[in-house]
Amino acid sequence: MSKGKAVFYHAGCPVCVEAEQRVVEAIDARQYDVVVVHLGEARSQIADAEAAGVKSVPALVLDGTPFHINYGASLDDLK
Amino acid sequence: MSKGKAVFYHAGCPVCVEAEQRVVEAIDARQYDVVVVHLGEARSQIADAEAAGVKSVPALVLDGTPFHINYGASLDDLK
Repeated sequence: MSKGKAVFYHAGCPVCVEAEQRVVEAIDARQYDVVVVHLGEARSQIADAEAAGVKSVPALVLDGTPFHINYGASLDDLK
Repeated sequence: MSKGKAVFYHAGCPVCVEAEQRVVEAIDARQYDVVVVHLGEARSQIADAEAAGVKSVPALVLDGTPFHINYGASLDDLK
């Protein structure tokens, strides 16, 4: 089985950090290569996140499908 | 390492089903015993979900910490 791609987008907010620590660690590393992207520091990747359908952070994109986890900040607030 | 407990609450809605198929399968089964609860069919467990801090479905509770994933329906709408 080839590995899928999981991208966890966050912005360093408290809601993001808790989700990162719990959710990212819970993902099966045998199934997914997990990349964590801090959009506050990597603003060039905001467009990628938007293209994947991400509206707010924290969000987890599993093989291109976005899942918004709780609510920390709107993507618009990071621009 | 003893296994943690992951409970995925949903109500059969389309948003719930997509999250269940992707997110539940992505969880590392070596770390967590995953239980899926359909609150539309198991209304007696709505109180448990509320006690864990769940406000809407779909939601994933990892060792007691609730994470709301996208938005399908309010818990109040299921009562």
